[in-house]
Order: sequence, then structure tokens, then C-alpha cells
Amino acid sequence: MITRSRHLPLALSQGDPSGIGPEVALKAWMSRRDDTRPFFVLGDPDLFERTAQALSLSVPVARVTPAQANDAFATALPVLPIGTVRGVPGRPDAADAPVTIAAIEQAVALVQAGEAAAVVTNPISKDVLYGAGFRHPGHTEFLGELAERHSGGKVLPVMMLWSPALAVVPVTIHVSLARAIAELTTELIVETGRIVAADMRAKFRVASPRLAVAGLNPHAGENGAMGREDIEIVAPAVARLRAEGIDARGPLPPDTLFHATARTTYDAVLCMYHDQALIPIKTLAFDSAVNLTLGLPFIRTSPDHGTAFDIAGQGVAHAASLIAALDLAALLADRAGGA
Amino acid sequence: MITRSRHLPLALSQGDPSGIGPEVALKAWMSRRDDTRPFFVLGDPDLFERTAQALSLSVPVARVTPAQANDAFATALPVLPIGTVRGVPGRPDAADAPVTIAAIEQAVALVQAGEAAAVVTNPISKDVLYGAGFRHPGHTEFLGELAERHSGGKVLPVMMLWSPALAVVPVTIHVSLARAIAELTTELIVETGRIVAADMRAKFRVASPRLAVAGLNPHAGENGAMGREDIEIVAPAVARLRAEGIDARGPLPPDTLFHATARTTYDAVLCMYHDQALIPIKTLAFDSAVNLTLGLPFIRTSPDHGTAFDIAGQGVAHAASLIAALDLAALLADRAGGA
Repeated sequence: MITRSRHLPLALSQGDPSGIGPEVALKAWMSRRDDTRPFFVLGDPDLFERTAQALSLSVPVARVTPAQANDAFATALPVLPIGTVRGVPGRPDAADAPVTIAAIEQAVALVQAGEAAAVVTNPISKDVLYGAGFRHPGHTEFLGELAERHSGGKVLPVMMLWSPALAVVPVTIHVSLARAIAELTTELIVETGRIVAADMRAKFRVASPRLAVAGLNPHAGENGAMGREDIEIVAPAVARLRAEGIDARGPLPPDTLFHATARTTYDAVLCMYHDQALIPIKTLAFDSAVNLTLGLPFIRTSPDHGTAFDIAGQGVAHAASLIAALDLAALLADRAGGA
Repeated sequence: MITRSRHLPLALSQGDPSGIGPEVALKAWMSRRDDTRPFFVLGDPDLFERTAQALSLSVPVARVTPAQANDAFATALPVLPIGTVRGVPGRPDAADAPVTIAAIEQAVALVQAGEAAAVVTNPISKDVLYGAGFRHPGHTEFLGELAERHSGGKVLPVMMLWSPALAVVPVTIHVSLARAIAELTTELIVETGRIVAADMRAKFRVASPRLAVAGLNPHAGENGAMGREDIEIVAPAVARLRAEGIDARGPLPPDTLFHATARTTYDAVLCMYHDQALIPIKTLAFDSAVNLTLGLPFIRTSPDHGTAFDIAGQGVAHAASLIAALDLAALLADRAGGA
């Protein structure tokens, strides 16, 4: 007997069809088929049937509309057809890019129309999409623009890496370490902190989120002995956040901020550069960290790995991170209440 | 019955007498009194008697020569008298600095004379010692100079943070992040890597040590997309180390270098800056990381914490890191063979 879920389903974009996205989506369905929050894929249903067959995964595929996804989920992976792709494993093809992009756009449109609860995105390859005219620095910025198109207002998407053990937000991201130092401003820390605090309230339902703010320098600069940035840039940002009623503390010495006892003292950490955030979370939760975008008017998560073209089609990809991304999206959808 | 140990004892310098050093030394004796590798303290015996009494720790104190330390160890904390200090808890006093310094000098002299197996140092306060004319940037550099005095040759002391889970070596240390980037050179990485490889062989008895070399930038620069330093500075250093027959690999993406599976692939990591090394080891082994100085002609370890004047005299200090420092010194002394 099929139980009709009361919940809106999650919308999973297919990602690059030549990467491990299709494989981990099939494996995630096998793992989550009894979950109370179903998901459906946006992409090419044939690609999923071919992948299941090639990898000997017993996963039926159902072609669905979003409204049919929940009923289909218990017995098949529901796929909303977006278009047809070649999707040769390990051989990315610019000809497939339009379907990859359309799947993301359609996922956002469905969530904003109230037909899906959250967007979960499988990995894309910027290089492949650039060849097809994609002009965004990455997935996150593209989603920000899609949100702006819909809302009309300015959107600053903020990347959080989340795991049950630790949530971190890098204030600067994919730039060299030298450029991260140069780009770090009080304003950027404050804007990021505001969005994190607001979304910890709105999405995680933490009434009074506690933000730890890491220093930039060793020992948070030790009163200026090891760099002035913590005094001149980070400390004023903490003061401004506090003046706005946000429970922010810092700049804190980065090296003593991530052990088990320290982690009980905050809900999220604002980190000043990529590896200050990524080193601790990948050390603690390598397979299960989730990429969550804050600042969007909807829930968006993604697995914390890339397309992995080198192992696509071999059946060896781990679905743990996609499963964690679906689970977090479901958790946040539940907390958002209603459907 | 007292069992006479066959081993040379470890020499523990008292550290700042107003910090937590005396307390953790007493606690370490309580924890390690049955260990096959005894230790003795160099300092003021009265300070240890006063501290034991004030904190209600049942630790007799024995005034000893180094040769008497082993016999005394089973029933008392052996202390080699160096001088008399005030040592008021939490109130550091420049008048005590000469004894603090002499204890370190004497510990090194005894190890170099073959009367002790290794030097273990309790924390000092540079500010206090500067007031008494101390002119070294820190403990490690002071030990380097003491070693040079004895050997006549140039010594480059290299700091390793060690725990059973992970060993890391920051190539640049107590400078701002911006200065760390500016100071990073191929030559510095190569010199550090040579010393680490040599001491992993000589002290840890690892026949062919595997060194992982972390990149400076996120994703190790991603082929120059996020900074050129990994191509221009780090990669040539790895090539030179390999040309010298050292099993070095890198530059490796820093964020995926410290999870459990990755840690099985190397014996130590060369890190490009302080927090790249300290964040992962303090996340994994907050209480039990040990500071080990490589490049010296003797074994030297120390706990990975400071004087902690703020909690001195309260009986709440944890001895775990000092115990780990003594244990590692004992392990390396055992591996060095002979006495």
C-alpha cells in the first residue's frame, strides 16, 4: 500500500549528467525511500534508467509531475522530465548544459511556486557550463540571481557548511588566501553575520542564535602582536552585530574554536577564509557535510563534493553527502512548518 | 620495595612558578608514578611542597641529584634544586625569572651530558622573562641557542605538534596571516621538510617517513585559479625534497587532508601557516597535543598550553597535556635505544 505523504517533496536538480550525480541520486532513493519527505529529480528520466541498469541498481524510474512525486516515491525514483541528455559517464559534454541549467531554474521555480519544499542541487561543472554560455561564478551565485528575478530585491547568498557536529560560514570563499585577507572588511562580516543570524532564526528556528566569530590571525592577533586585522576589521564587526541585538562573540582564537567543548558554546562560526571553515568541518564530518545556502528566500542544500568525473559510471560513488543534503533540506522544511 | 629503573630519567623544567606548571607537575607524578621512565623537576623544591599542601595533593617531594631521581620517583616527586622563588600563584614576578631560565639551561646541560634522557619544559611567560633580560623570541629559539652553544653548529629548531592521531609542522608560526604568506619561501619549506624527515627517522625511527605538504590556498590553488603560490613556491619545494629522496607529496588541498582516511596516508603534514596546523590538531586532540621540537640534538617536548596565570593556584588545571608530553618524551627516549 502506498502512503500518500502530507509533505511537499524536495526538488533535486540532476547536476552534470556525466558526473556522479545520477548514481548518487539512485543510491539516495534506495536509502531514503521510506522517508516521510520524498524527493523528485529534475532531469532526463532515460539517463536514470540507463544508469540504474549499467550499475545494476534495482531502482525503477517514474516520469512524474511535481504533484505526482509523493505517490510515486515509495516504489520508484520520481523524475520530472526536463530534456534529453547524452550523459556519458566521465565525458562531460557542453551539449548537455542547457538541460543541466534548466533543471536548476525549474527547481527554483517550483519551490517559489509552492510545489516543492526545498531545492537540493547535484554538482555541476562550471567549465562545462561556461562553454554553453553560463556566466555565473558558481551554483550559489546563479541561485542568488534566480531568487532576485523572482523577488525583485537584492539577494546576498551565503554559504554555510553544515553537519550535526558543526556549522561554519566562510566570509570569503573561493579566492587565494592573500586575496581573502585583502577582501575582508567589517561590512562584509556584518552583512554575512546578519544573514546567518536571520536564517538561523527563520530556517533553523533557533530563537537566539549564538555566533562565534573567528579571528583572522593566529591567537586572534594576540592584541595586535600578530596582525592588526582582528582589532581593526573583525572586532568592529562583532561590535556592530552585537549593537543590532545579535549574540556574536569574537574575534576568537581560531585554533581552540572547534573541539568538542568549544562547539557547545555556539550555533555557527563565522570564519574569515575558506580553509578556516573547511578544515575543521571536513576533519570532523568528511562524508556527511552539507552545503547550505543562506540568504535565499527558499531552502537550498547540496552535497559537499563535486562532479567527480574521474569515478563516474563505476558504481563506487558514496551517496552519504547527498543523503545528508536531502535530510537537512527535509529537516528545515519540517521546521518551516506547514507543508 | 623500590625498583631501580634501568632508564635515564626525563628532565622537566619548572616553568613559570606563578603559572600552572607546579600543579600539573604534581598531578603528572601522581598519574605516572608507576611508569618505567621516571622524571625529575628542575626548580625550587619548596615551591612544590607549598603547592602540594595548598592544593591538598598527597605528593611528597624529594630533593635529588639527577642520579638519585629514579630511586626517589616511586615514592616522591624528585626535584633537583635550582634556586628559590616566590612563585605566588597568578602573580608572575620578574624576580623569579633567573631560576626559571636556569632550570631550562640546566635541563639541556644534563641531557647533553648524558644524565637525563630528554628535556620536557613547563610553560614560561616571555613577558616576565623579557623583564629579566631574556632576549629570545620564545622557548624554542632559546633551546636552539643552547644547542648551538654545545654543538658549535647551526641549529634550526622546528616545532611539531604531535598527538597519536596527527602530527603537524607549521612552516611559518607566530606571525600574522599576511606575514606568513610573505615569509613563505621554497627554501623555508625545504629546510623544514629536511629536518622533519631526518627527525622522523632519527627520533621516531620511521624508516621512510611520508610527508604530506599542504597547499597554501583553498584547493591548493586549483591550478592557479586561486593564487599562484602553490605553483611557484610550494610545488618546487616538494620537487626538491623528492629529489633528495624524501617521500614528500603535495601541494595537497588543505581541507581534505585531515580526516581519518587521509591521516593513514602520511606520517606528518607540513603546514604553511599556524592555524592550518593548529586547527586540525586542536580539533582532534585538544587536551592531549604535545609540542615537540625537531632539529635539536636532543629530545624536547612540552605541553601545548601556556602558563594559565588566570587559573593558577586553584587546583583546576588539567595535567593531560604535560602527561602526554612526558609520555612522548619517554616513547622517543625508548626508541632512541640504550638508556
